[in-house]
Amino acid sequence: MKVFIIGTGNVATALGSAVKKAGHQLTGVAGRDESKTSVLAAKLKCKAYSLSNKIPVNSDIYLVAIKDDAIAEAVRNMPSVKGIVAHTSGASPITLLKRFPAKGVFYPVETITKGHPKSFKKVPFCIEASDEKTFRKLMLFASTISSEIYSLDSTQRATLHVAAVFANNFTNYIFGIANDILAKQQLPSALLQTLAKSTVQNAFEKGAIQSQTGPAVRNDIKTIDKHLALLKDNKDYQQLYRILTGQIRNVHKKAKKQD
Amino acid sequence: MKVFIIGTGNVATALGSAVKKAGHQLTGVAGRDESKTSVLAAKLKCKAYSLSNKIPVNSDIYLVAIKDDAIAEAVRNMPSVKGIVAHTSGASPITLLKRFPAKGVFYPVETITKGHPKSFKKVPFCIEASDEKTFRKLMLFASTISSEIYSLDSTQRATLHVAAVFANNFTNYIFGIANDILAKQQLPSALLQTLAKSTVQNAFEKGAIQSQTGPAVRNDIKTIDKHLALLKDNKDYQQLYRILTGQIRNVHKKAKKQD
Repeated sequence: MKVFIIGTGNVATALGSAVKKAGHQLTGVAGRDESKTSVLAAKLKCKAYSLSNKIPVNSDIYLVAIKDDAIAEAVRNMPSVKGIVAHTSGASPITLLKRFPAKGVFYPVETITKGHPKSFKKVPFCIEASDEKTFRKLMLFASTISSEIYSLDSTQRATLHVAAVFANNFTNYIFGIANDILAKQQLPSALLQTLAKSTVQNAFEKGAIQSQTGPAVRNDIKTIDKHLALLKDNKDYQQLYRILTGQIRNVHKKAKKQD
Repeated sequence: MKVFIIGTGNVATALGSAVKKAGHQLTGVAGRDESKTSVLAAKLKCKAYSLSNKIPVNSDIYLVAIKDDAIAEAVRNMPSVKGIVAHTSGASPITLLKRFPAKGVFYPVETITKGHPKSFKKVPFCIEASDEKTFRKLMLFASTISSEIYSLDSTQRATLHVAAVFANNFTNYIFGIANDILAKQQLPSALLQTLAKSTVQNAFEKGAIQSQTGPAVRNDIKTIDKHLALLKDNKDYQQLYRILTGQIRNVHKKAKKQD
């Protein structure tokens, strides 16, 4: 397929490379920032465009890989293309693209940073489309990039997005607290990396209820008090410890009652 | 070395197998529950003992792999052995073993459940010992089980233990929330597993501050309000979302000021 990329950030860069590697033809890349656009176009060996009606109209798919609050404006500046216009956002509805006849969403559920992920093969993609024909074409396209493809409408994607905030943003912050506690005692974060990996594996493969261990679920007040005393220099960490311990105790009390 | 195991739970089972696999001689296993002790002894092809002074006194190492609050009693019932007596707990101090001349701690930083981990090779072990000779012997022994060995005193281990509550207990609970949010909309947890794995990798390899993404760090009030509305049916999830979002915003405000 002929694919055009809109955007010059990490998502545009990673998807552009993946699209090229999958054997599609990149017809160009367009962005607000001229120099960033040139750099990415050179990297992907395709033409650079400004975000204007000069964008070629003959591509099969236009991937809009830019920040949520910039999608509306970018879309306004595009020519009226016949191909599929799909954004890559988890948070934005498909209706942002209403001026195009064939519209879709092509959302990779992954944190995309410079050099990560190396491949999209195991990254789940959530597909939504304005009509059956567009849906089939987007699914076919997605299957050349990844082996994990899901059909989600905008409501389901909004649910997924809030769940992803817990599974990524919040756990990232808490892993940061763990490493900060270690660092303050000159202990290396490597002490916890294996455990953190196992935590993900167990939570997703056995389930979090079955995998819950620790003083909260054991109702081990002595250890909880010792931990709260150790956290006395950081009121934020203490507050979080108290709230999470309380919630874990409640959830497991309820789970036991249901047994 | 001749190694004796005290305990019959997951830690005793996993360490017993690892010790055997490393080529040491298992001299026996002792536990409170007679039938569990027999089962484990049969599995490890060694003799079963009760927790009494009949435990053989000629082993090099006695691994006390039982719950924190049962260690003191188990230790009282043991004969006066000359070999190293080491417990495997992250939370208990070495002083629990004070009646023995050679004492130590042999703490694997991993969540140990039935069948997990398959191998201890990459599991960090934290070693503490009563004296230099015991320390060297425990280090040598540990190096036959794992390639990641650390020397930590009881104070450092207490810090590590509270950090591990954040890195395992609390993140497990939060991954559970993410999966619960998905399940309520009949969405599969597989949608988030790749992202969760990347979260651990990024938090430990790039650092959590550098890896923080999402509406909190972007100060994206519109999305935060949308998410809080989606969580209206669960006050616990809402409360956690608010507190974590507030803390992430504060930490990143401070981090920016320091730039």
